[in-house]
Amino acid sequence: MARSVGRIFSGFRCFGSLSFGNPRLKTQCVSFRISSDRTLMHELPKFCSQTPRDFSLPNSSWGKEMMQLYNHYNSLSKEATEGQEDHGELWTRLPSYNRSLKYATGGVYLSKIIQSKARLFTRNIRDPGTGFEYVLFVREDKLKCVCIFQAGHLLEGPPGHVHGGAIATMIDTVTGTHASMLSALVMTANLNVNYRSPIPLGSTVLIESILDKEEGRKMYLSCRVTSTDGSKLHTEATALFLSVNVSQLLRQ
Amino acid sequence: MARSVGRIFSGFRCFGSLSFGNPRLKTQCVSFRISSDRTLMHELPKFCSQTPRDFSLPNSSWGKEMMQLYNHYNSLSKEATEGQEDHGELWTRLPSYNRSLKYATGGVYLSKIIQSKARLFTRNIRDPGTGFEYVLFVREDKLKCVCIFQAGHLLEGPPGHVHGGAIATMIDTVTGTHASMLSALVMTANLNVNYRSPIPLGSTVLIESILDKEEGRKMYLSCRVTSTDGSKLHTEATALFLSVNVSQLLRQ
Repeated sequence: MARSVGRIFSGFRCFGSLSFGNPRLKTQCVSFRISSDRTLMHELPKFCSQTPRDFSLPNSSWGKEMMQLYNHYNSLSKEATEGQEDHGELWTRLPSYNRSLKYATGGVYLSKIIQSKARLFTRNIRDPGTGFEYVLFVREDKLKCVCIFQAGHLLEGPPGHVHGGAIATMIDTVTGTHASMLSALVMTANLNVNYRSPIPLGSTVLIESILDKEEGRKMYLSCRVTSTDGSKLHTEATALFLSVNVSQLLRQ
Repeated sequence: MARSVGRIFSGFRCFGSLSFGNPRLKTQCVSFRISSDRTLMHELPKFCSQTPRDFSLPNSSWGKEMMQLYNHYNSLSKEATEGQEDHGELWTRLPSYNRSLKYATGGVYLSKIIQSKARLFTRNIRDPGTGFEYVLFVREDKLKCVCIFQAGHLLEGPPGHVHGGAIATMIDTVTGTHASMLSALVMTANLNVNYRSPIPLGSTVLIESILDKEEGRKMYLSCRVTSTDGSKLHTEATALFLSVNVSQLLRQ
């Protein structure tokens, strides 16, 4: 059971809280250190009743800037450059789902936390282009993660601009995904966000996460939200994540 | 024009960015220092084509804890205690809308930022109980603001628990509303959030904001998210807001 929990949870990035856990279960989680999303893709056939939608793939709402950047990073992916010379900066696109646990089987551990109606906060709006449209790429050495984010009109805070909470949400998502590349199950301990310039609704921005250091269970990351050409800084942040295990969530 | 912009914008709390503005317009904004939401209620008939829904009123999705706390603070409101002895702690409920600007008329300033489809991030989900259910009360002396928040299943981050971005969003909302009581148009400059313990989906929590100090255009606030009886600390944060004016948004 613990092993399957570990495999299922390797498909998750966990954000938003800090807890202390049972070291006995940690090995199951830590053993799935590869990209959580990619692992999930491989594990899904064992648990799926149907194929879930991958929200990281282009849809008709994606604007020109979003598509150009997507194509740029895709052209630098392992698949695209296979057989070609390695230019030292290969990227991997991370698939993204809204309700992975629905497809999982499990016993007492999972039954305590599975809610069939639950949806990932950043993927809970059905209409393409109205909420969070984003795709993440991670660099091969896992020291850097980049997100292309197009902000829909349902994310309003200041009139005509993106809500500070929606920006914090994307920063948590990008840094959390990045941290999960190093330790499968992580949770946010701290987010410190400085807002420099508002982001107009409908615009596309780049969110870049850099791993600053690792200390035991702690991962320190920094993050910048800029215009797509990098000339305008919208937001900068630091984040601290802790590697955790399943039992820590259940004991809350 | 500038005057009507000031009146319309007095109905907003602005979160999520920092900017520097035109002092000529500031007087129009600063003159509407009363609770932004209450002012909006008074201003709306001049601009409305229909009455907007007040999301801060109870609906069928509100659980027992949410209703008990709502009734508690409502019983301490000015209306409820009218004619009775003042116990020194009177509260005012703040109405909440999802698209106030749609109802506004205006010229060149507003046409640059009005998007008829835009919706406030925290009120963009139609089905009651599935997203953010919350109501804010502010104390008469404006030194304290409290929010009762019930987290729906579309706010998931860690399996079965609220996304860290959704928690940051509520902290931004509560502290931003609080800051807007002191200066009508404010924007977030910094949010520093420490996540202590995850919040289970479906649960109700209290979010309390306290004004620590004011320095010119700067307002420093602190915030705690706890269980409804105050015994469990989920999250604590500090926030910095800047008072701004309309032109600052337009010049971004």
